[in-house]
Amino acid sequence: MEILKQRILEDAVVIGDSILKVDNFLNHQIDVALLDEIGREFHRRFGDFGITKILTVESSGISVACATAREFNVPVLFAKKGNASTLNEGNYRATSYSFTKAEEYVMNVSKKYLGEGDRLLIIDDFLANGLAIEALLDIVRQSGAKLEGVGIVIEKEFQTGGRKLRDKGVHLESLARIASMEGGIIKFS
Amino acid sequence: MEILKQRILEDAVVIGDSILKVDNFLNHQIDVALLDEIGREFHRRFGDFGITKILTVESSGISVACATAREFNVPVLFAKKGNASTLNEGNYRATSYSFTKAEEYVMNVSKKYLGEGDRLLIIDDFLANGLAIEALLDIVRQSGAKLEGVGIVIEKEFQTGGRKLRDKGVHLESLARIASMEGGIIKFS
Repeated sequence: MEILKQRILEDAVVIGDSILKVDNFLNHQIDVALLDEIGREFHRRFGDFGITKILTVESSGISVACATAREFNVPVLFAKKGNASTLNEGNYRATSYSFTKAEEYVMNVSKKYLGEGDRLLIIDDFLANGLAIEALLDIVRQSGAKLEGVGIVIEKEFQTGGRKLRDKGVHLESLARIASMEGGIIKFS
Repeated sequence: MEILKQRILEDAVVIGDSILKVDNFLNHQIDVALLDEIGREFHRRFGDFGITKILTVESSGISVACATAREFNVPVLFAKKGNASTLNEGNYRATSYSFTKAEEYVMNVSKKYLGEGDRLLIIDDFLANGLAIEALLDIVRQSGAKLEGVGIVIEKEFQTGGRKLRDKGVHLESLARIASMEGGIIKFS
């Protein structure tokens, strides 16, 4: 997706060899016009799969998932992290790990909103090691819903998450695939 | 906003006398068509104030803020909670408290994205005691930006947040104002 790659080249900040900050337009400040373009692109790629629901995880996936869901005219469902007192029963749960925060966390999805009839598109902003997506896949398995695909805004291909998902036969579409960021230079695949 | 009140009566769940769960359409599963209506309603109420940016806090405010920002054609900026390693310098910071999670937390907003030229609309899903909004107001003060108003989807008027903001002269607009939920019966103002 050319407009996205251009934006990454203009506004993303590389830290070390593996951290990419897109706080200018996606992860802190959000460019809603770009978000709409991203939603339309995911619809172009997954529009024929009978998607009934978009699944993501709080919080940086929510904006992208909502923009995508508008195009599909289906609800968003976002996994909640932790053990909030308002979300303690009747959930599918899976454990993931945040490298950013250096801690384990639990994702919760209510059994009320996900079940065997659903055909899911998982959406997230980043794919690196893939642990968040793996946890969502675990929740999908528990629910009996059918996974139709995974849509990612920015995939860091030099980490292992994408390869592991493709090896499992998951239909993965990433709008910008970064091959390397060595020396602070972003190279797309 | 009639369509919102109807949806609350149909799908919200009252727990005790003060907790309202809207997980069916706003806080876990998200009805994106309703979200669009909410965005349009905020634009009707604040469209003439020269808003340059929508400010909210992760994570349940993000979906509403994005739908609103589309109508205004301005960026969203969402305060990040905690001390992520990717967000540690150059921030406005304010402390709030989550009754749901029973813990203090810090909100962070990068100084890069908020400053004196900005005219802000703060958006959030709920207003109860108002501590989250107070922390955002603190950040706005630090930044020198001008607060034009606060837009809330659901205000629990029987708690003190709304009154405190109105007493300060804040232009507060809530799309559904709940006067009481005693005995599990939702009464709008």
